[in-house]
Amino acid sequence: MTTRTPTLPKAASDALVKGIANFPTLTKDEVIAATPATNEEWRSYSQARNAEQKKKVKKMKKELEVGVELLRLGQVVVRKLTPNVISPEFENKAYIDVHGGAFVLFGGLPSIEEGLLVASRLGIVVYSVDYRMPPTFPSPAALNDVTSVYNTLLEEIGAQNILVGGTSAGGGLVLSLVQTLIQRNIPLPKAIYVGTPWADLTNTSDSLVTNECVDNVLVTYEGQLKAAAHLYARNKLLSDPSVSPIYGSFAHFPPTYLVSGTRDMFLSDTVRVNRAIRDSGGLTQLELFEGLSHAEYLIFYKTPESETTYRLMKRFFLSNL
Amino acid sequence: MTTRTPTLPKAASDALVKGIANFPTLTKDEVIAATPATNEEWRSYSQARNAEQKKKVKKMKKELEVGVELLRLGQVVVRKLTPNVISPEFENKAYIDVHGGAFVLFGGLPSIEEGLLVASRLGIVVYSVDYRMPPTFPSPAALNDVTSVYNTLLEEIGAQNILVGGTSAGGGLVLSLVQTLIQRNIPLPKAIYVGTPWADLTNTSDSLVTNECVDNVLVTYEGQLKAAAHLYARNKLLSDPSVSPIYGSFAHFPPTYLVSGTRDMFLSDTVRVNRAIRDSGGLTQLELFEGLSHAEYLIFYKTPESETTYRLMKRFFLSNL
Repeated sequence: MTTRTPTLPKAASDALVKGIANFPTLTKDEVIAATPATNEEWRSYSQARNAEQKKKVKKMKKELEVGVELLRLGQVVVRKLTPNVISPEFENKAYIDVHGGAFVLFGGLPSIEEGLLVASRLGIVVYSVDYRMPPTFPSPAALNDVTSVYNTLLEEIGAQNILVGGTSAGGGLVLSLVQTLIQRNIPLPKAIYVGTPWADLTNTSDSLVTNECVDNVLVTYEGQLKAAAHLYARNKLLSDPSVSPIYGSFAHFPPTYLVSGTRDMFLSDTVRVNRAIRDSGGLTQLELFEGLSHAEYLIFYKTPESETTYRLMKRFFLSNL
Repeated sequence: MTTRTPTLPKAASDALVKGIANFPTLTKDEVIAATPATNEEWRSYSQARNAEQKKKVKKMKKELEVGVELLRLGQVVVRKLTPNVISPEFENKAYIDVHGGAFVLFGGLPSIEEGLLVASRLGIVVYSVDYRMPPTFPSPAALNDVTSVYNTLLEEIGAQNILVGGTSAGGGLVLSLVQTLIQRNIPLPKAIYVGTPWADLTNTSDSLVTNECVDNVLVTYEGQLKAAAHLYARNKLLSDPSVSPIYGSFAHFPPTYLVSGTRDMFLSDTVRVNRAIRDSGGLTQLELFEGLSHAEYLIFYKTPESETTYRLMKRFFLSNL
């Protein structure tokens, strides 16, 4: 239960420091030892993690007072999240939420974790995509599901009323969605959010090394991340742009809001995506938080860091509607 | 000669990777052992570092074809840098350059290192401030000199024609300058640049810990940085806002362009300043580079990372003139 960095960040908010201190961080060896080796092991590992996450999400759902409606858009399972109060500017808009979980975890009710926050804090109707995942459905099932939901909503309300976003694997899928839409000449969402995106599944990004065991959420690329990457890519190379969007094109991207933290193992993925979009002439806003590990603005949603993340997301979307 | 991170960043540019590979990086122990202990030791250490730096700067001066004129503005030694070609948009503008060097190093000709790049790449007249430094002149001499130069130029050409910027200790001084101007109700520069600013001299920023020995330029806070902080602050607390601007106010800041890298030990200082300005309602642009340690966009000026830094600086200034 020790990490390479024994100290807590001194200049993060008290709430974040408390969250980190109480988080059940594993050592690198423990992460590797806990990594599923077979499809059956993945299924039971995933079930255990989901069961835990379900409790958190049920609590959040009540607390944030968001209505949840299970439905299908086309063939895809989606949860429509309706907040108590809808912001006037978002009245005819919809946000498509693509959940994280290393492309393997958090199907079912856990998929709405960030969607609940977005619905409640932005005051917008959210469609959380419960996309298909490995071991049964490897790539490109997830991307096909997300694209299908986008196309359905596109027909219903038009691209000018759609925002899309997600964290981690969800952020990676949002990037892949946009690259797919651009390739197919389909109208783009008005703006997107990619929180600490898993944009490069290969072991290339520098912060995978420099923040190993500093990031108390991901801990290490060895073990679960590496195994999940291969499970998701199945027969593709990890550097295939359809699974690692960093190797695809970033030309013509819509305005993009990015979030990461100084301890995040996907800091480099975030920075590289930001660089790629800006170098292609696109508009981005990059928000970084002091001492924050992977996705902790979402995990510790009662922190100033989390409040700021979604407050600035709302402002970014409003200024790009 | 080993660091905690034996590998080179894989997704940085080839030129940056080559620069890092050939850079004479010290170990933490070596840095601590080389730290001057007395004023006399500081003077000879500083002379040795400056002599080395002078060679680099003389070469850059020729190569970049920038005219250098030594002059005094008020009581302060300044070098006026005039590039071969001045951009039409910058014809009546001036950029005040505040050099880095932990508040102790790079007086004299070495002070113009970044000024040369700004003059040449932006096409603008630069005034490089050769501010007084410890051991003879601790804080607030440097800030007084920078403020004095600003006030002289203010009378000559008006605040609307002035841009200000600097890296590391220079970035910290730029922040302190702006805080001083705001306190005194003096008109502000149109925009500022703070590259990987040393904004917090205390050992508080998280990346001082997480990027220790990952950053191959600064290596560690122990040793030179800590000693230089105390030499500069003299009788003040390191947390005094006049030496650590992070503890001052960021309300009413002009548009601010910030640069850092994922390996930078001052990444947290950069992120915290960015957060503080944005939370106070100010406009910033934050540029981060993959695998880049402290100030390497300046040290390795023939890299794409360096080209991008000053290209985007020019664009930022132009859009805020």
